[in-house]
Amino acid sequence: MGENSFELLDKIKYPEDLRKLDVEQLPQLCQELRQDIIEEVSVNPGHFASSLGVVELTVALHYVYNTPEDRIVWDVGHQAYAHKLLTGRREQFFTNRKLGGIRPFPTPLESHFDTFACGHASNSISAALGMAVAAKLEGEQRHVVAVIGDGAMSGGLAFEGLNNASSTNNDLLIVLNDNDMSIDRAVGGMEKYLLNLDTNETYNRLRFKAAQWLHAKGWLDDDRKKGILRLNNALKSALSHQQNIFEGMNIRYFGPFDGNDVTEVVKKLKQLKLLRGPKLLHLHTIKGKGYKPAEESATIWHAPGKFNPATGERHVSNNTGEPPRYQDVFGETLVELAQANPKIVGVTPAMPTGCSLNIMMKAMPNRAFDVGIAEGHAVTFSAGMAKDGLMPYCNIYSSFSQRAYDNVIHDAALLNLPMVLCLDRAGLVGEDGPTHHGAFDIAALRAVPNLTIASPMDEHELRNLMYTAQLPNKGTFVIRYPRGNGVHAEWRTPMKEVAVGTGRCLREGTELAIISFGPIGNEVVKVLDEMPTTKSVAHYDLRFVKPLDENMIQEIGNRFKKIITIEDGVRNGGMGSAVLEWLNDHKFYPQMVRMGLPDAFVEHGSVAQLRQLVGLDADSIRKEIEA
Amino acid sequence: MGENSFELLDKIKYPEDLRKLDVEQLPQLCQELRQDIIEEVSVNPGHFASSLGVVELTVALHYVYNTPEDRIVWDVGHQAYAHKLLTGRREQFFTNRKLGGIRPFPTPLESHFDTFACGHASNSISAALGMAVAAKLEGEQRHVVAVIGDGAMSGGLAFEGLNNASSTNNDLLIVLNDNDMSIDRAVGGMEKYLLNLDTNETYNRLRFKAAQWLHAKGWLDDDRKKGILRLNNALKSALSHQQNIFEGMNIRYFGPFDGNDVTEVVKKLKQLKLLRGPKLLHLHTIKGKGYKPAEESATIWHAPGKFNPATGERHVSNNTGEPPRYQDVFGETLVELAQANPKIVGVTPAMPTGCSLNIMMKAMPNRAFDVGIAEGHAVTFSAGMAKDGLMPYCNIYSSFSQRAYDNVIHDAALLNLPMVLCLDRAGLVGEDGPTHHGAFDIAALRAVPNLTIASPMDEHELRNLMYTAQLPNKGTFVIRYPRGNGVHAEWRTPMKEVAVGTGRCLREGTELAIISFGPIGNEVVKVLDEMPTTKSVAHYDLRFVKPLDENMIQEIGNRFKKIITIEDGVRNGGMGSAVLEWLNDHKFYPQMVRMGLPDAFVEHGSVAQLRQLVGLDADSIRKEIEA
Repeated sequence: MGENSFELLDKIKYPEDLRKLDVEQLPQLCQELRQDIIEEVSVNPGHFASSLGVVELTVALHYVYNTPEDRIVWDVGHQAYAHKLLTGRREQFFTNRKLGGIRPFPTPLESHFDTFACGHASNSISAALGMAVAAKLEGEQRHVVAVIGDGAMSGGLAFEGLNNASSTNNDLLIVLNDNDMSIDRAVGGMEKYLLNLDTNETYNRLRFKAAQWLHAKGWLDDDRKKGILRLNNALKSALSHQQNIFEGMNIRYFGPFDGNDVTEVVKKLKQLKLLRGPKLLHLHTIKGKGYKPAEESATIWHAPGKFNPATGERHVSNNTGEPPRYQDVFGETLVELAQANPKIVGVTPAMPTGCSLNIMMKAMPNRAFDVGIAEGHAVTFSAGMAKDGLMPYCNIYSSFSQRAYDNVIHDAALLNLPMVLCLDRAGLVGEDGPTHHGAFDIAALRAVPNLTIASPMDEHELRNLMYTAQLPNKGTFVIRYPRGNGVHAEWRTPMKEVAVGTGRCLREGTELAIISFGPIGNEVVKVLDEMPTTKSVAHYDLRFVKPLDENMIQEIGNRFKKIITIEDGVRNGGMGSAVLEWLNDHKFYPQMVRMGLPDAFVEHGSVAQLRQLVGLDADSIRKEIEA
Repeated sequence: MGENSFELLDKIKYPEDLRKLDVEQLPQLCQELRQDIIEEVSVNPGHFASSLGVVELTVALHYVYNTPEDRIVWDVGHQAYAHKLLTGRREQFFTNRKLGGIRPFPTPLESHFDTFACGHASNSISAALGMAVAAKLEGEQRHVVAVIGDGAMSGGLAFEGLNNASSTNNDLLIVLNDNDMSIDRAVGGMEKYLLNLDTNETYNRLRFKAAQWLHAKGWLDDDRKKGILRLNNALKSALSHQQNIFEGMNIRYFGPFDGNDVTEVVKKLKQLKLLRGPKLLHLHTIKGKGYKPAEESATIWHAPGKFNPATGERHVSNNTGEPPRYQDVFGETLVELAQANPKIVGVTPAMPTGCSLNIMMKAMPNRAFDVGIAEGHAVTFSAGMAKDGLMPYCNIYSSFSQRAYDNVIHDAALLNLPMVLCLDRAGLVGEDGPTHHGAFDIAALRAVPNLTIASPMDEHELRNLMYTAQLPNKGTFVIRYPRGNGVHAEWRTPMKEVAVGTGRCLREGTELAIISFGPIGNEVVKVLDEMPTTKSVAHYDLRFVKPLDENMIQEIGNRFKKIITIEDGVRNGGMGSAVLEWLNDHKFYPQMVRMGLPDAFVEHGSVAQLRQLVGLDADSIRKEIEA
């Protein structure tokens, strides 16, 4: 709760208090809510611009619907801060995203106003449809509303949900929160013009040329580029037509309306509440609404960190001389490799800024593809390019790559297609919590034949692995690396090939061998450097969990009776398990401790706090060594 | 090659020979091809009706396009028999689906006329788009054509592909092979009528009532039911509109045309070949075209087994008194449970006949949902229903469940929602080959917190597990079972609760313990029953790979120095690995052999042949015991 007191907001603890207000008071409440969010997030950083955009929608939903009896299903949940403030969590809001505090995304584990799991995009329609069908079957009168952004609408899961929405008896309302309009308006005229041209050869050529020309002009800053890239986006263009995609799916369509006009939204919701059957309300909202800097640059203000609310000055750390982020090493190195190898292309499902593919998108717009929130497509599209001679680097956050598990197996690994799957945000990610930790990739992927799976211990290794992966006959190559910064200020070293399936001995020893996988190995180095009597402890960087370095593991098996493995992924079936399997298959029976993530969803907090919590911090490593 | 000789077909080994024909000769060639397929498949069983439907399309594609330089990307590949016969595989066609013979689905591993991995639906657009983009970037003039059925079009991946098709520079042609028209025509008038009604409350109520009424009337045999269920299907209704869904996505739409008129299809393809940009050709074809019994009952003739081509009499084995198929035990038991527990609902992604949910769909049409080819949605939709009080049994083939990996993690397990995921076709499936084996589910799912993962050894256990899963507080419950028949002729036994996380000792022993998981345990029983000196061998049925029966494993660890684990899933990270992990964590170091599927994609053949090949047959078990 900010320092200011608010006339209306201070009286609202739960939506039932909100519903006592007159509709005329709602604009003031929205104003107060917005102010509260700005004050809170400026000191306790979190997602920002998207929550500002849906203040009016949130107020209207809780005003019109009888929550929590009626169900509101948020998609992703970045945007749910107003929802949290109105549902009993205002006093604790300063703990948002902090260890033990309010969770980063809505979850029924926290509040019965949160109806479903949020974090991964595009699941709201399917889940809400399930709830709407349940209400019907159980003879309950409750209403169900899914709120989904235009970005999430590009996910195949959202389509599957839409495709099924009209095939059962339900009264679902889908609210399409279209907040890219502030960007699209800049090019809306062009879009309309192009769409209205005849669909002939000339038109098609022209359309492609126009997009290329805008790119080439360098007209596009990151935000605008996003808009242009969506120039041809299906939904956007579909919405321009009289007969739109939703009506085509037998979902009644209403809109578009101004989603930042609370009175209007209340009116529409009241009307729709009476209507049976599945229906969609299309609202335009402005991301960052009501806070000028955020309205002007929504991407930067998506999660801005601390800032001065009065001036809009963000607290940007001056990190000159500090180690770079892994994602930037990926982004810069990819361009470097692509300059030398014309076959290389880059693919991201809607994370150009998050994974730094935006560097390549700027340098080589024809060879870098943002396919929208569509992880499955990202992998299969890459596989298609690989099949016909290109060398794609497809970058997906580890936890989102779970959406593409079958695509990796069926479309890439089965044919052992030469392509690279870069899994950013592997391991613990921190404040984004259980939906975003990259915990399962090692266990899930090492079961898949043909894959090569590597993790670099530092930036130099990341570059070497990225270089190696594009050399001939490497097949499908997975490289996992974490969120955050590396360890070397000087990282732009010459690249060299790494022999696939080879680890490294970083420190000789006599009694105990530690085998690490990925950057967590740097923690081991630190611990060993600081320990007085570590001559007996050897340290190996496994580097490849698949194929295993059998020579190295055999040597370890021969020389050591005690082994510790450590990884930033689940213990069940993970890297330690792979080593254990090999040793057992070859009749080595050392005492072995496998350190890794537990068999539980790890909550949110800083990475350092979480490592301590799960026993992957320096202290835990030290204790394990001493034991 | 059948016994008949064919005037035109006999002269064609590769498409280049086909392209020497005059267009007037193509109808005769189609006639000959169709005859050849009928003769071949009647003695060497395989997929049938869908291949008959696309004879003309296949001939036209190879006639108009310069294959294999031009790329044809089949979706699923059931329908590719004419394609195989025209691309150098006619003489070997009698080996189709047999061990070492022609593969069940097109694959580049077999022929360079096969351009991509087939087997799992909906991947063709994404893969072909990748190829089309590759051609552009590489300055190649080659054409790329994706051929996708209307069923596959309901998958989210297809939507993601469509959504991206217009956002890059490419000349992709998508052929929509719409073969449900033979079914839909029966209800087309109703569909049109309903669609043309005003979109008001009355209309919505009426539409739902009409569908319910048709169900209740029992008017619907399986085929017709399929049609009705799609009555409200998005794509079908979208196509009825002037402005259709594809145009909405900036993909030029052409059609619908008669896909069984080869001259017409050649003409259209020639026109479209000249057109730049992404485009879609919508063809109606008749599944089973040219073979009357198949035209009349496409579902039965999808893969009919052996039959008499002249009479249409199918070689149906009379299996009275034989053990039932696991899928039927699932289907019957679910209805039995649902009669007692009104919260139970059933969900299948397009496999009502394959998983026997059709039994419930007939008995309780309001409580059983076929959501189309949409595995991700199937799980999240089930999770939504579970969240609001229902008890869904969501049945997915193991290998297709890879499409829903994230949904299981993020939408079900994270909240530990009470629902049941039944994985049919777990383990080796036989002739359908590497894309269809259920090899990875154990390894991938046991990494996921909260899940309970069980596999029944027989039908009684399946029933008991299904009964147990719906009892209170069981959370997200996975039950995996194989394709094919069980072991008990009498299977409809009373159901009882199984304590979660408990295994069974089936046979006491002194020296060696065998731990099996699932029906493969019956092989162990047989081997032990037949071996003379097996008093020293104990046999345990693990039953739950998660949570593990720690008491049982501890006892095994205490009593045995030698352990064999056996499972019908990959060794890497599988059940044996789980047992090994537990033993190692608790300082047991027995000699241990983990039997399971290798780290390689297992090809096609009968299940018995494949078991022998991978070392999971009785002989291999015996040898391992003796060793």
